[in-house]
Amino acid sequence: MLSIDLNADLGETTAGNPVADDAAMLSLVSSANVACGFHAGDPHTIAATVAQAGQENVTIGAHVGYNDAPGFGRRFIDYAPAELADEVLYQIGALSALAAAHGTKVSYVKPHGALYNAIAHHQGQAQAVLDGVRAFGDLPVMLLPGGVAVDLAEQRGMTVIREAFADRGYNPDGTLVSRREPGAVLHSTEEVVARVLQVAATGSVTAVDGSTISVDAQSVCVHGDSPGAVEMTRAIVAKLRSEGIAIRSVA
Amino acid sequence: MLSIDLNADLGETTAGNPVADDAAMLSLVSSANVACGFHAGDPHTIAATVAQAGQENVTIGAHVGYNDAPGFGRRFIDYAPAELADEVLYQIGALSALAAAHGTKVSYVKPHGALYNAIAHHQGQAQAVLDGVRAFGDLPVMLLPGGVAVDLAEQRGMTVIREAFADRGYNPDGTLVSRREPGAVLHSTEEVVARVLQVAATGSVTAVDGSTISVDAQSVCVHGDSPGAVEMTRAIVAKLRSEGIAIRSVA
Amino acid sequence: MLSIDLNADLGETTAGNPVADDAAMLSLVSSANVACGFHAGDPHTIAATVAQAGQENVTIGAHVGYNDAPGFGRRFIDYAPAELADEVLYQIGALSALAAAHGTKVSYVKPHGALYNAIAHHQGQAQAVLDGVRAFGDLPVMLLPGGVAVDLAEQRGMTVIREAFADRGYNPDGTLVSRREPGAVLHSTEEVVARVLQVAATGSVTAVDGSTISVDAQSVCVHGDSPGAVEMTRAIVAKLRSEGIAIRSVA
Amino acid sequence: MLSIDLNADLGETTAGNPVADDAAMLSLVSSANVACGFHAGDPHTIAATVAQAGQENVTIGAHVGYNDAPGFGRRFIDYAPAELADEVLYQIGALSALAAAHGTKVSYVKPHGALYNAIAHHQGQAQAVLDGVRAFGDLPVMLLPGGVAVDLAEQRGMTVIREAFADRGYNPDGTLVSRREPGAVLHSTEEVVARVLQVAATGSVTAVDGSTISVDAQSVCVHGDSPGAVEMTRAIVAKLRSEGIAIRSVA
Repeated sequence: MLSIDLNADLGETTAGNPVADDAAMLSLVSSANVACGFHAGDPHTIAATVAQAGQENVTIGAHVGYNDAPGFGRRFIDYAPAELADEVLYQIGALSALAAAHGTKVSYVKPHGALYNAIAHHQGQAQAVLDGVRAFGDLPVMLLPGGVAVDLAEQRGMTVIREAFADRGYNPDGTLVSRREPGAVLHSTEEVVARVLQVAATGSVTAVDGSTISVDAQSVCVHGDSPGAVEMTRAIVAKLRSEGIAIRSVA
Repeated sequence: MLSIDLNADLGETTAGNPVADDAAMLSLVSSANVACGFHAGDPHTIAATVAQAGQENVTIGAHVGYNDAPGFGRRFIDYAPAELADEVLYQIGALSALAAAHGTKVSYVKPHGALYNAIAHHQGQAQAVLDGVRAFGDLPVMLLPGGVAVDLAEQRGMTVIREAFADRGYNPDGTLVSRREPGAVLHSTEEVVARVLQVAATGSVTAVDGSTISVDAQSVCVHGDSPGAVEMTRAIVAKLRSEGIAIRSVA
Repeated sequence: MLSIDLNADLGETTAGNPVADDAAMLSLVSSANVACGFHAGDPHTIAATVAQAGQENVTIGAHVGYNDAPGFGRRFIDYAPAELADEVLYQIGALSALAAAHGTKVSYVKPHGALYNAIAHHQGQAQAVLDGVRAFGDLPVMLLPGGVAVDLAEQRGMTVIREAFADRGYNPDGTLVSRREPGAVLHSTEEVVARVLQVAATGSVTAVDGSTISVDAQSVCVHGDSPGAVEMTRAIVAKLRSEGIAIRSVA
Repeated sequence: MLSIDLNADLGETTAGNPVADDAAMLSLVSSANVACGFHAGDPHTIAATVAQAGQENVTIGAHVGYNDAPGFGRRFIDYAPAELADEVLYQIGALSALAAAHGTKVSYVKPHGALYNAIAHHQGQAQAVLDGVRAFGDLPVMLLPGGVAVDLAEQRGMTVIREAFADRGYNPDGTLVSRREPGAVLHSTEEVVARVLQVAATGSVTAVDGSTISVDAQSVCVHGDSPGAVEMTRAIVAKLRSEGIAIRSVA
C-alpha cells in the first residue's frame, strides 16, 4: 500500500494570538512540526499542541528556529555555529519535556524558516544544527532535498526525511521557484491536491515548464497558516484516501 | 562527619556579559543553580556552565524563573498557574538536555528571584511550580523554609531542600530581615563565615537581636554576583574545611 | 450636534501575524490606540498603522504597556515605579517619531491590558504612568472611570478621557461585571449597538440588573481583535450616523 | 587649538547588570553612544545615562542596533530594509524622548555592532539606516571611514562623523586588521595613548607594518567595557590635555 507523510507547522500561537487552526490541522496531518518557543510558541501553547498531537497519534517534530520572535525566525542570523548548536539542543530538550509530560515524544527535528533555508547552503550552520540534534539523540531530520545539510547528515549516518511542498512551484532542475518569480506558489486547491497525489503516487511533480521531474520526498509540507489552509488540507486528505494512499509518518 | 551544601546562582551570563565569575565559583560550591534562559542565560553559556559543573562534580539545579529577561526575573508577574507550570517544565527540560549532552544531569530545582519569593506565600504559583517539577520527574525543590511552597511540596511527598542565607540578617522568628531595614545584609567576610559555620555546625543562626535561633537548612546560599563574592566564598570554604565540615550536595 | 469618540486597539501585529484587521478598523473608528512595541507591535507595523491613521484622520493614541510581549501585556508585573515611568516615556517617544515621519502625531495615551487595570487601584504604578506621560508633554490620558489614576491625573491638572465599553456588562454601581461572572460580555450586535447609542445619546447604560445608570464617558472602546469585530463596528457606525451622532475624537 | 572627539558606548546596562562604568566614562569622554534598548539598555538605565551626560556636557548619540538583545546586536541579521529603517527611527525617537525629559537631546546617530559593520558594505541596510535617521531629522551619522554608508550619506547631503579606533590595529590601506589576525588589538596603555595623540595631532596612524598612513577621523572610539577601560581612558584624556588638545564633540 502506498503511503505519504503530511507535515504542518503548528504550535506557533504566541501571546495568545493563534497563527493557525492547530486543532483542525492536527486532525488531518500525520506529522506536526511543533514550535519550540524561539521563533514562536510559548510553553503552554506548545504543551496543548503536543497533548492533542498525542491524542490524535500525530508524530511530533521539533521545529527549531533562530532565537528571533520579533522576526518569526524568518530572517537569516549569522550565528556562531557553537551557539546555534546549543540553541537547537535547548529547544529539542524543552519540547521533549513537554511532550513526555503528555505521554508522547519528539520523533524528528525540522529547522524552521530562515534556518531551514540557510542550512541548504551554509555549511557551518548546517553542521551546527546536526550537532545540536545529535547531542540530543538519534533523531531523523526533515530537510529540503538537495541541500548541504542533507549531504552532511547522511555522511554522519543520520536519517534524513526529505520533503516536498504541496503548494510551491518547481523548476525543471528540482529546485523551488523563487518567490520573486511567477509560478512560485500554487493557489488552486485542485492544483495542490493533484500535486500531493502525484508526489505520493509517482514520486514526481510537474515543473513550471510542464516537464515531469522526479522528487525524492517521504513527506509533503502543507500550510496551516493561510486562509483556507484547513479546507485545502481536508481536500488533500480526502483525495489521498480515495486513492487508497495512507497518510503516515516515517519518523 | 558534619556536612553542608553550598549553593550559588550561576550560568547567568547574558548576551556575552558575565554576571558572576562562574569558573571560580564552580571550583568552590557543591551545588550550582543554573539559569535556564528565562530570567538570564543563553544556551551556549548554560552549556559551558553545566559542562564545567560536571567536571568539578558540582550538583546541578535548574534555576527556573519568570520569562522576564529585561527584569532579570526580579519582578513578580501574575501568571496564570497553568502557564507557569508549563514554563517551569520547559526550562527544566531545556537545561536537562544541555546537561545530558555533557554527561551530567539536573538533580534539583530552585525557583529564582521574584518567583522564589512569591511561592513562599502565593498558593497558585507554588502549586504551579511544583506541578511543573513533578511533570518532569522526581526532583527535590530548594525552597525558603517556612513558606507555602514547602508545605505544599511535603504534602505531595516531594523532597524539599531548605536553605539558609550566608549574608542575610534573620529576625528572631526565623524570617529574613527586610531589605528595607537595617541589618538586612551582612557585609563583613568574618560575619558571613561565622554564619555559615554556625548553620553547618549547630543548625542555628544569631538573629539581629542577638538571640540564637534554630534554622532547618540543608544548604546555604552564597552569592557569586557581588564584588568580592569569590573571595568571600573562598573564606567560607576554607573555614568549613578547617573545621572538618564536608561541603556536599544533598540532592 | 451630539458626538462620541470610538477607540480601538490597533497596530498589534507581531512577527507578521495580524491580531486585527487594522485597515478596516481605521476606516471606522475616530481614535486608534496604537501598540508601541512593548506588549505588541513592531516598528514597521506601527509605522504602517500611523501612516494609515493619518490618511484617515484617525487620532493616534500611544497604547503603552508592560514590556511583556510573551504575555501580550495581559499579566500584572510588579515594576518599580521609576522604571515604569521611563518605559512609558520611551514608548511614547518611539511612537511619536514614527507618527511624525508620516506627518501625524500622538494625541493621547492609553495604558494597555494589565497596566490599564492596575492603575485603577495601584497608586504607585498610576503615578508612574502619569509621570511618564508628563515627561513627554501635555497629553490627555484615556482611563477607566472611577479609578485611582483618574483622581491622580485630575489632581495634576491632566486631561482625562473617560471611556465606556461597547461590549462589557456593567454592575449597578458603574463598575464592569467581572469576566468570571455571567453578563460580563455582550455578544449580540444588537445589544452592542444599542449600548453605544445609549452612551452617546444619553450618557447612560443599562446595567445587568436592568437599572439605568449614568456613565461619564467621552469615548467608547470597540474591539478589533475578535471574529466579527469589523462587522460589529460597521453596525455601530451606521447606527450612530443614522441617529445624527458624530464620531469624533476628543483628544 | 587642536581638538578631537572621544566617543564611547554607554547605557548598555541590561537587567541590572552593568557592562561598563558609565559614570566614570561620562566624566571623561565628549560623546556618548547611548544604547536604545534594542541590542542593550533598558529605559530606566538609558534615562540615567542621558541625565548624567547632560550634566557632564557630553554629547549624546543614538547607538541604534538590531533588535537582538540575546546576541547584543553582534550578529548580522538579514532585515528587510524597510523594517530596519523603521527600527532605527523607533530607537532614535525613544532615546530622544528620554533625553528631552532630562533637558538634553540626541545629536547624532551611530549604528552598533553587526549593523555598524554591515553598512560598510551592505547597500540595502546602509540606505535603510540613513532613511531611518533622515525620517527623524537632520542628524549626523558616525561611521567607519571608507564604507558604503559614508558614500551614500554624503550623496544625500548628510553629515558624516568619521571615527578612528583607539585600540585597533590598522592595515597599510587604512582598513582595520581583522580580529582573526595578529595585531588586531593594541593592548598597552602606552600604545593606545600614542595612537589617539597621533590621530588628534597629525591625522595619521602607524599601521601594522610600521608605515604611517593618514586617517580622516573627527572622533576616536574608546572602549568602556573592558577591564582597565576607565584607567586607559583617563590616560588618554590626561595626555591630550597635556598636549593642549581639546576633547570636544563635533556633533
